[in-house]
Amino acid sequence: MKERLAAFAEERDWQQFHTPKNLAMALAGEVGELIAEFQWLTPEQSTTVMSDPEAGGRVRAEIGDVMIYLTRLADVLGIDPVEAALTKLEDSARRYPIDQVRGSAAKR
Amino acid sequence: MKERLAAFAEERDWQQFHTPKNLAMALAGEVGELIAEFQWLTPEQSTTVMSDPEAGGRVRAEIGDVMIYLTRLADVLGIDPVEAALTKLEDSARRYPIDQVRGSAAKR
Amino acid sequence: MKERLAAFAEERDWQQFHTPKNLAMALAGEVGELIAEFQWLTPEQSTTVMSDPEAGGRVRAEIGDVMIYLTRLADVLGIDPVEAALTKLEDSARRYPIDQVRGSAAKR
Amino acid sequence: MKERLAAFAEERDWQQFHTPKNLAMALAGEVGELIAEFQWLTPEQSTTVMSDPEAGGRVRAEIGDVMIYLTRLADVLGIDPVEAALTKLEDSARRYPIDQVRGSAAKR
Repeated sequence: MKERLAAFAEERDWQQFHTPKNLAMALAGEVGELIAEFQWLTPEQSTTVMSDPEAGGRVRAEIGDVMIYLTRLADVLGIDPVEAALTKLEDSARRYPIDQVRGSAAKR
Repeated sequence: MKERLAAFAEERDWQQFHTPKNLAMALAGEVGELIAEFQWLTPEQSTTVMSDPEAGGRVRAEIGDVMIYLTRLADVLGIDPVEAALTKLEDSARRYPIDQVRGSAAKR
Repeated sequence: MKERLAAFAEERDWQQFHTPKNLAMALAGEVGELIAEFQWLTPEQSTTVMSDPEAGGRVRAEIGDVMIYLTRLADVLGIDPVEAALTKLEDSARRYPIDQVRGSAAKR
Repeated sequence: MKERLAAFAEERDWQQFHTPKNLAMALAGEVGELIAEFQWLTPEQSTTVMSDPEAGGRVRAEIGDVMIYLTRLADVLGIDPVEAALTKLEDSARRYPIDQVRGSAAKR
């Protein structure tokens, strides 16, 4: 997907706009649209949002947009997002040991 | 990674907190931290942020966090984020034909 | 407050950083910190967050930060934020007539 | 404005949706729309956005929306946003003494 996104930008001469600063903004803009889909739903209602074809379609499209800009941003920064996520997950595993944090949402 | 994140949450009894609504908020919170790394940089400075070990390390960690919550959110919604991104990319290819939009950032 | 914020920036020679683009990013970063305070709370728990001195103090500080950057952004754009809000409120009053939308969160 | 927003919500029986959690999400959604207006502009272009009637009108409307949800969120939390901002500004004045930080965007 990284290559397809890079080609998409290059064909349109859009690399000039794809600085990390601008892509971080585009990512934030898309996350804003995604969060708007959930703002008036209860947590319970949010778990069944995909069973509504219209709202579900919008949520799927927004997830796609967020994924596009996250992938593109990571690419122009030279970061592998999966590797970065796994490193963070290992950090979190150390910071939140299972036997100490079960069932608690408190931040450390 | 999807499975590792799900196991991570299950071991800590955190699925109760992982509603789509809450995960969308967590995603937005992490994107806020990511964007803060770029806010005072010029677009040019943002392109070399990874050459600064400290700022670069923070950006990598934030990309990891965003990837974690995006993957987790897509998982609880039953969405494949790569597939959703590719669908959106095809939409965009139709909406932004190469010969009509070259070099222009105008929205359609 | 607008004048105090402008003086604060001028004394520190920070106007150079205070472009609308950068201030919009700073605003988004602060809103990210604010939303993180609520991400794992139920809607009910969120209504009593101010009764916890620690969390309440953080929320108050984040509201302050958001207000600072919103005021500063509006100022450099030459917009009166209260006037802009009242104009939008009148639009919303027309789009959401009381007798048609009572109790419904549906978007129009 | 606080009272007008509260009346607007009450007339429509919308207080049920206006928990701090939901309002923080609505605020983040509006900030996402605002930031999208600036994402492909250079910092220099962003300083003249208001001279374009269309883009300028959208920016003004988004500033209004952000102000609405910030005011409403602060109100349901019992926070005076101007007071919260002034307290934060005093903190910042102490943390960023004029003679030490002139012209530098480094965080403390």
